[in-house]
Amino acid sequence: MRAALDLFTAQGYDNTTVAEIAERAGLNKSTFFRHFRDKREVLFAAQDVLRQLFADGIAAAPAAATPLEAVAGALAAAAAVFPPGQRDLAPQRRAVIAAHPELQEREALKRAGFAAAMTAALQARGVPDPAASLAAELGVLAFRRANACWADPANQESFDELARQSLQELQAASITLS
Amino acid sequence: MRAALDLFTAQGYDNTTVAEIAERAGLNKSTFFRHFRDKREVLFAAQDVLRQLFADGIAAAPAAATPLEAVAGALAAAAAVFPPGQRDLAPQRRAVIAAHPELQEREALKRAGFAAAMTAALQARGVPDPAASLAAELGVLAFRRANACWADPANQESFDELARQSLQELQAASITLS
Repeated sequence: MRAALDLFTAQGYDNTTVAEIAERAGLNKSTFFRHFRDKREVLFAAQDVLRQLFADGIAAAPAAATPLEAVAGALAAAAAVFPPGQRDLAPQRRAVIAAHPELQEREALKRAGFAAAMTAALQARGVPDPAASLAAELGVLAFRRANACWADPANQESFDELARQSLQELQAASITLS
Repeated sequence: MRAALDLFTAQGYDNTTVAEIAERAGLNKSTFFRHFRDKREVLFAAQDVLRQLFADGIAAAPAAATPLEAVAGALAAAAAVFPPGQRDLAPQRRAVIAAHPELQEREALKRAGFAAAMTAALQARGVPDPAASLAAELGVLAFRRANACWADPANQESFDELARQSLQELQAASITLS
């Protein structure tokens, strides 16, 4: 991931080949392709992990947890993908995606997948629709807002803390809507 | 749109050319390209109109309207894109998109654009973030749910009515989340 982002940033996403990424990461090409379908997937591999963490976090919440408490569990589980040592990669990743419409499309679909995974996990806990869908969208919005803060070099808080704050802010905002 | 969907359904999206769509619609190719960048855009042209209708609907809400009342105005404005005479196209369109990952990506990005347009329009009314983002996501979720009912041949209600019901259901569900 770091090798790919360094190259994308230095010479452009379009000009970077899989061979260059593999070489910089100290992998041969076949090892690269065992982990990633193509260079685009290097940017989105964490998304598949996240989807599973969201689902597992919701499933692991106590039986008495409200839908939003279960979503808080999903966001806490997601923090595993945001170690402090990789925080400097976040703004680079955002910049590459922002510059390429086809990467934005992939990002949008991955986010839709987050909501679908959270919705299914909430339904499996017995949360009816549309409450499950709504809690999931709220969770994805909290995740996106925490993610934006995480990518801001001026921000020093852990992802876990950012996600917690973000969900609380959304909960407070929800009572001002009608 | 009908010409394109008929061809996509009959012979497959991948096997259909712009020339065939134009011929069936009684257009020459240059007229086609004045309206659509490529065959993919035939499926998504309404999305750009919708984005504007959402923004205009929110802007046109009375000054005293709550964020969700303004969102209801956005959904009511969107009904213009869902005339009863074109209802039979909706399941065809969904089937084509469901069968093509690259069309799903485009669809996901367009939906992200809906939320962004609604958020900006709400902020322009003085709704602070994250309330504006949250109301917008709720609006997009209501829109998607109404859209799914609209594409169900068993459903007979107008889009306007479906959107109104969907938003009310989400509002009722929101108080069950925590």
